[in-house]
Amino acid sequence: MTEQDFEVTPWDVEGNVNYNRLIEKFGTERIDDEIRQKIIQNAGENHLYLKRDFIFSHRDLDKVIEDYEEGEDFFLYTGIGPSGKMHIGHIISFYFTKWMQQKFDVNVYIQVTDDEKHWDRGMSFEEIEKHAQENIREIAAVGFDPEKTFIFRNREYMGNMYDAVVKIANKINNSTAQSVFGFEGSTNIGMNFWPAVQCVPTFFENKRCVIPAAIDQDPYWRIQRDIAEKLGYEKTAAVHSKFIPALTGPEGKMSASKPKTAIMLDDDPEVVEEKVKKHAYSGGGDTLEEHREEGADLSVDVSYQWLHSLLLEDDDRIREIAKSYSEGEMLTGEIKEILIEELNEFLQEHQKRKANAEEKVEKMMYDGELAQKMWDRKINLEK
Amino acid sequence: MTEQDFEVTPWDVEGNVNYNRLIEKFGTERIDDEIRQKIIQNAGENHLYLKRDFIFSHRDLDKVIEDYEEGEDFFLYTGIGPSGKMHIGHIISFYFTKWMQQKFDVNVYIQVTDDEKHWDRGMSFEEIEKHAQENIREIAAVGFDPEKTFIFRNREYMGNMYDAVVKIANKINNSTAQSVFGFEGSTNIGMNFWPAVQCVPTFFENKRCVIPAAIDQDPYWRIQRDIAEKLGYEKTAAVHSKFIPALTGPEGKMSASKPKTAIMLDDDPEVVEEKVKKHAYSGGGDTLEEHREEGADLSVDVSYQWLHSLLLEDDDRIREIAKSYSEGEMLTGEIKEILIEELNEFLQEHQKRKANAEEKVEKMMYDGELAQKMWDRKINLEK
Repeated sequence: MTEQDFEVTPWDVEGNVNYNRLIEKFGTERIDDEIRQKIIQNAGENHLYLKRDFIFSHRDLDKVIEDYEEGEDFFLYTGIGPSGKMHIGHIISFYFTKWMQQKFDVNVYIQVTDDEKHWDRGMSFEEIEKHAQENIREIAAVGFDPEKTFIFRNREYMGNMYDAVVKIANKINNSTAQSVFGFEGSTNIGMNFWPAVQCVPTFFENKRCVIPAAIDQDPYWRIQRDIAEKLGYEKTAAVHSKFIPALTGPEGKMSASKPKTAIMLDDDPEVVEEKVKKHAYSGGGDTLEEHREEGADLSVDVSYQWLHSLLLEDDDRIREIAKSYSEGEMLTGEIKEILIEELNEFLQEHQKRKANAEEKVEKMMYDGELAQKMWDRKINLEK
Repeated sequence: MTEQDFEVTPWDVEGNVNYNRLIEKFGTERIDDEIRQKIIQNAGENHLYLKRDFIFSHRDLDKVIEDYEEGEDFFLYTGIGPSGKMHIGHIISFYFTKWMQQKFDVNVYIQVTDDEKHWDRGMSFEEIEKHAQENIREIAAVGFDPEKTFIFRNREYMGNMYDAVVKIANKINNSTAQSVFGFEGSTNIGMNFWPAVQCVPTFFENKRCVIPAAIDQDPYWRIQRDIAEKLGYEKTAAVHSKFIPALTGPEGKMSASKPKTAIMLDDDPEVVEEKVKKHAYSGGGDTLEEHREEGADLSVDVSYQWLHSLLLEDDDRIREIAKSYSEGEMLTGEIKEILIEELNEFLQEHQKRKANAEEKVEKMMYDGELAQKMWDRKINLEK
């Protein structure tokens, strides 16, 4: 595999990924047993994504936990680019963020990047806003604490945070923005300015910020980490997840615009069943005979990967499935049935919460304790 | 004179200037007799700066006047970068803008660029704000119509105009911004974004915008003129003034940070007298004998230039002075006395109005008819 094959920039993820090399490339830290144990200790329980090594890398999480043990808390920051419907790959890090909030009892800030989507894709405000409203309901359905969570659209909240954006933009030069993000002469000056807007929430509190995100988003935080101390703040910490393979196989990426590659959050059970049966990439043998003889290749089998990393809590059961499927005893059709069941259970719960999210949306955006405080504040990096 | 000698960018003006070549370089139009007559006709009177050719160039002013004659009005836009105290060179275009407002009964928008001054010079918000408040009082003292004038600081007004900024930024690419303004890799991404913020007020109304400014500011409007029609608006028009020579001579530029080069708006009569006597650059002969023989060179004599272009309304009197001084009859000391008298009369009136500007400031920023309308609006380029 050449270097080119796993080029990872924030805008595009393709190809099979060597995660050790990504950790090396980005200069992040592996989540090793020591830090995992500390998280579990303080959280009071383990989390599926952690124990299955789906959340696998971090920056400064050791310091965050150390401070936390000494009574200093932190806050969480994540976001969504409202360019379409959300699929299961989009919501995963929100579920992990919610778990962190619950276990550590901290504030969560969620930036809806309705400015960036205009600059990045030239989408109209109307279209972006339609997606934003829908995305916000999906996010609210995750179950964040409505009194400790602030969801905001940049275009609406800019009046409260422009002072901070101005100060941050002053610390980032064109060369840095261009080398980190690959901006060019043809890039519009909005997109070029965007790193300043995305950094702002890391300065919403004078505490350590923790950003849960897929590892390809790391470059943004590197810019923040370059400038934070100059502005009198802490470098942001991060926890990184792996990429979730597309339904159609580990070479691709789930995409809302290619429905067969992804399970959408609003897919109903029949659609899920059909998509998995038709499109879930199988690591099983090409023929029954071959499968019985050689077994399945778990490393490329999407059903197994999704169950293992994202869905199946029961350790014994996933071990059994791994053994039976890799030895050719369990068939692709059977593991797909398990995936369908787990997916539909997950989606059903999610969709139920989404149907009742209206009040929570209002609280997280405007009326909750944190939201009210944020609308009364001017973010200007003064402490 | 080499091309280099009159390099003109928005950030720096130096050297002696060939105005015909500037018109050619920028591709603007000379204000010829025909358009001057039309302005006078519609305004009902002539203006000193026009008749002395100090306001000498324009873009699309012919169209503005044509539309005006058919009952469609326009609006005026100007601004101030609050980086220091204001001198006489800063206030000149505001006086012309006020005259245009008065004669054509149109709205005026005045942008106080408290974001750009942080990006351009790294000045602290505190220092910028101190200058902004003082500058705004100077501008209010000019005598704009408080019901038809809106003075706003970008950092305070951004919440109302970010939507428009986002749309504008989407239409300007890095190459354009960098070639027009000379931005480089080391330029911060705020400054690089700035052209979008400065363009916004040209879209405050769906009418023709007219920008009165020194000709070195023209590049900004060229960007606006490239994108306006794509956004469904008119290209902005402009009226351009010449540069005002520094007190110390036509090679330099008045600068608040070099007090002897400029007459500050708050200089008292004794200071004005001393500055003019000590520093006003003379085109007179080096000795009395030489002066009597050869006369003064009016083209470099700052006292004459200021009186001619900016201060002395009386045509007969300026002609007399020109004749007498250029023939060596009038002495430098005498023309300086005239300048001192005219400057002090101008400053005294200005300072008196400034002392009583508080209520006008409030109206132009918040309470006046136009200001109230602007605070109730969301500027989003939708008509």
